[in-house]
Amino acid sequence: MPSLSDLKETALYVDDVDVAVRFYCDVLGLAVLIQDQRFCALDVNGRHVLLLFLRGASCETTTLPGGTIPPHDGSGPIHAGFAIEDADFPAWESLLAKNGVAVLSHVNWPRGGRSLYFRDPDGHLLELLTPGVWVTY
Amino acid sequence: MPSLSDLKETALYVDDVDVAVRFYCDVLGLAVLIQDQRFCALDVNGRHVLLLFLRGASCETTTLPGGTIPPHDGSGPIHAGFAIEDADFPAWESLLAKNGVAVLSHVNWPRGGRSLYFRDPDGHLLELLTPGVWVTY
Repeated sequence: MPSLSDLKETALYVDDVDVAVRFYCDVLGLAVLIQDQRFCALDVNGRHVLLLFLRGASCETTTLPGGTIPPHDGSGPIHAGFAIEDADFPAWESLLAKNGVAVLSHVNWPRGGRSLYFRDPDGHLLELLTPGVWVTY
Repeated sequence: MPSLSDLKETALYVDDVDVAVRFYCDVLGLAVLIQDQRFCALDVNGRHVLLLFLRGASCETTTLPGGTIPPHDGSGPIHAGFAIEDADFPAWESLLAKNGVAVLSHVNWPRGGRSLYFRDPDGHLLELLTPGVWVTY
């Protein structure tokens, strides 16, 4: 049986791609891989691709030169969690404060990891989590 | 400035956690890390944590011994993409067919990677993608 190597692409659906891109790049330090009217793909440390789709713009099949992508879309303030180094935890708290991003809560996990939670411009619930949250991380 | 190491947790919101878990474990081969009435966390090859939340069950603050998690929820058939080895592409097509999962489309990407698309029991649009889809992958 084949096995999945990783989960490589995570999608968030946003009301204004430019606003979201500014937040993810200027505040969280991500870099744009590709951007058009419909979506933006952001690089997360060469390991993951965060896709920001304009809400409602992918409800029809997307036709590309190499094939088609079936419809997809989403709403609601969904959750995504970014890995950070524990040593950077205070620096992230300072950086979010400096950018006017409110930290909504913290969690100390049984395995020793810790998390903080905040929201992106669309209300998505983002988490920064250090090693020690999961048995695998 | 600190930097994000990875995107580690991806969330999907589902109508029946048990049904979704059976699909992700029995068909896609993922393993349960933790499961309760509200959600299930699945391991993706030790690299990523896929969170399946019961839709509507996280709309209030979740209180844990170590802190609180603010509300989150989602609807709509959102997208997520799993990394696979190119050599396993035919095996994945066979496995999906054997499990009655329809492959909806394929894409051949300019960099040489290829993808196939299908849906999970909640209609989420899943992709299996080989290396060569992104400049980073």
